[in-house]
Amino acid sequence: MNSGRKIPKLPGAFAAVMLLAVTLPAHAQTPALASWNDGPAKQAIVSFVKDVTDKSGTKYVEPQDRIATFDQDGTLWVEHPLYTQAVFALARVHELAPQHPEWEQQEPFKAVLANDHSAMANFSESDWEAIIAATHAGMSIEAFQALVKPWLATARDARFHRPYTTLVYQPMLEVMDYLRANGFRTYIVTGGGQEFVRVYSQSVYGVPPDQVVGSSILTKYEYQDGKPVLMREPKVFFIDDNAGKPIGINLFIGKRPYAAFGNSVGDKQMLEWTQAGDGARLMMLVLHDDPIREYAYGPAGGLPDTKVGTFTPALYDEAKSKGWNVISMKNDWKRIFTFEK
Amino acid sequence: MNSGRKIPKLPGAFAAVMLLAVTLPAHAQTPALASWNDGPAKQAIVSFVKDVTDKSGTKYVEPQDRIATFDQDGTLWVEHPLYTQAVFALARVHELAPQHPEWEQQEPFKAVLANDHSAMANFSESDWEAIIAATHAGMSIEAFQALVKPWLATARDARFHRPYTTLVYQPMLEVMDYLRANGFRTYIVTGGGQEFVRVYSQSVYGVPPDQVVGSSILTKYEYQDGKPVLMREPKVFFIDDNAGKPIGINLFIGKRPYAAFGNSVGDKQMLEWTQAGDGARLMMLVLHDDPIREYAYGPAGGLPDTKVGTFTPALYDEAKSKGWNVISMKNDWKRIFTFEK
Repeated sequence: MNSGRKIPKLPGAFAAVMLLAVTLPAHAQTPALASWNDGPAKQAIVSFVKDVTDKSGTKYVEPQDRIATFDQDGTLWVEHPLYTQAVFALARVHELAPQHPEWEQQEPFKAVLANDHSAMANFSESDWEAIIAATHAGMSIEAFQALVKPWLATARDARFHRPYTTLVYQPMLEVMDYLRANGFRTYIVTGGGQEFVRVYSQSVYGVPPDQVVGSSILTKYEYQDGKPVLMREPKVFFIDDNAGKPIGINLFIGKRPYAAFGNSVGDKQMLEWTQAGDGARLMMLVLHDDPIREYAYGPAGGLPDTKVGTFTPALYDEAKSKGWNVISMKNDWKRIFTFEK
Repeated sequence: MNSGRKIPKLPGAFAAVMLLAVTLPAHAQTPALASWNDGPAKQAIVSFVKDVTDKSGTKYVEPQDRIATFDQDGTLWVEHPLYTQAVFALARVHELAPQHPEWEQQEPFKAVLANDHSAMANFSESDWEAIIAATHAGMSIEAFQALVKPWLATARDARFHRPYTTLVYQPMLEVMDYLRANGFRTYIVTGGGQEFVRVYSQSVYGVPPDQVVGSSILTKYEYQDGKPVLMREPKVFFIDDNAGKPIGINLFIGKRPYAAFGNSVGDKQMLEWTQAGDGARLMMLVLHDDPIREYAYGPAGGLPDTKVGTFTPALYDEAKSKGWNVISMKNDWKRIFTFEK
């Protein structure tokens, strides 16, 4: 429940989890889509899979072409009140502050260090870029991962008092499993940092690093003591959001998805691109309409407005007119988190 | 045999093949590495695979981490006298000339249209970028592939009088098969165009599009008649050569290779990056020392100098000092092409 609460504006990116060994055997042994209520959303998934796997049908898809793409923040795990990767970045600012006395007088760091939520809510894209540059760059790729792992192991979400990597939607894990059991390769296509998500994608989602498409900063090949290292540079390389999602999909996968899952305006082009292919295609959007078990925000459907994971009325109308399926967390999901009884 | 012959300078990229249905059942039925002579190169491959697949050994590697990367031009197929993709680009200049009367007075197009090999030999990187921009951009990704396919089906190499897609090294196909049979994922990591190579990577090498890492130009998401298209823009996005190879490997795969194969200075960093990992690693360089069956160029080993696929004495020395294996095409390969008797 975030209505009336100001949320920092982000550059359309960022999110997170980890190697916390949140192994997920529980759902693997239950029937397919066990956490889904019977309804149009579940039916659309089952019907789509039947179509593309029926060799005698006209909509059959060869296994090597069965690609499914999933947005992460708000689609696979909680993104409110703030993207997990942004929480990580802000924590890093506090951690690095002793080495940067100048930050006490220098925005955007000054506001972060003062926990000035009002100022943070109005951060510009360049403010966030400065924070990412200060917290995510200037180190090797291994050093970066070595920062993310322990943070994910110890950080706790303020509302659920649990590691961020456990705030994953059980029904979506079941969809990923169900699709993989039917020959699909599941990709994460996130506005968040590719290298950040890769730290935990295998353990949390069963998605290997090469199936994580995300935003990235430049890396530079250098030698340190004669040994090659890839150093992370404080400069954006690729933003995998909005139109960047189909661009990233083509760049990294080279094939058009047959199924795509998102939850916000940043996923619109990914779903359009998916639908523009021939044959059976499945486009789904998660609507956060459950303030009791998770959060409620839109502003589609009269839900509270938000800057994090915005689902606009225009996106809702596009979904309805194009036959995209809107998943109601409240009505379509029996259970939201694996830890729920 | 290209000694004394001037070869156009390329921007360190480009190469090609196709869907010519050069299916390769022949080698799949023969014993592993059948076209390799017994010798240190073959022995290094067999020994490496034994090490990483021996569960009881200290060098065992989990299947999900078995990554092997292959340069394409000069490593998997012929690159002399000119990269195949460059041949394609020059052919496109001739084809497009009627629509560009200004090219008759405008370099670098004027030299191409006049077949001025001396001028082409001195083309700068920006000359080649202009040619790529004019021939590879300004169209959708589907339109580009629809140009490449028929060209590959009809174009013939001037010396072998065969499609370029058949000028693939049989021993290297056998290495790819052998590694895949032992749980490896095989990636092409090429300075050539990623979208170009994807047209034929599956049919020629058994490598799916998402396992092709290559150079790319920008794409732009647009709507045409309400339908989304990805348009190829005349601007370089990523050059996957030299230090770009380890950068591209990290970006696209997110794991360090255990085996890497190349043939020129553009592969040096990929091999260094591979070797810098722990445990058993296999680094190999193909040396073109067979002027009878293929070509001879270095200038390593006193072979003729070349601007296409240069193997310098310095690279040769680095290979020797670091334990990289140099494959002699002349001595290590019984057969070079599948079409040879």
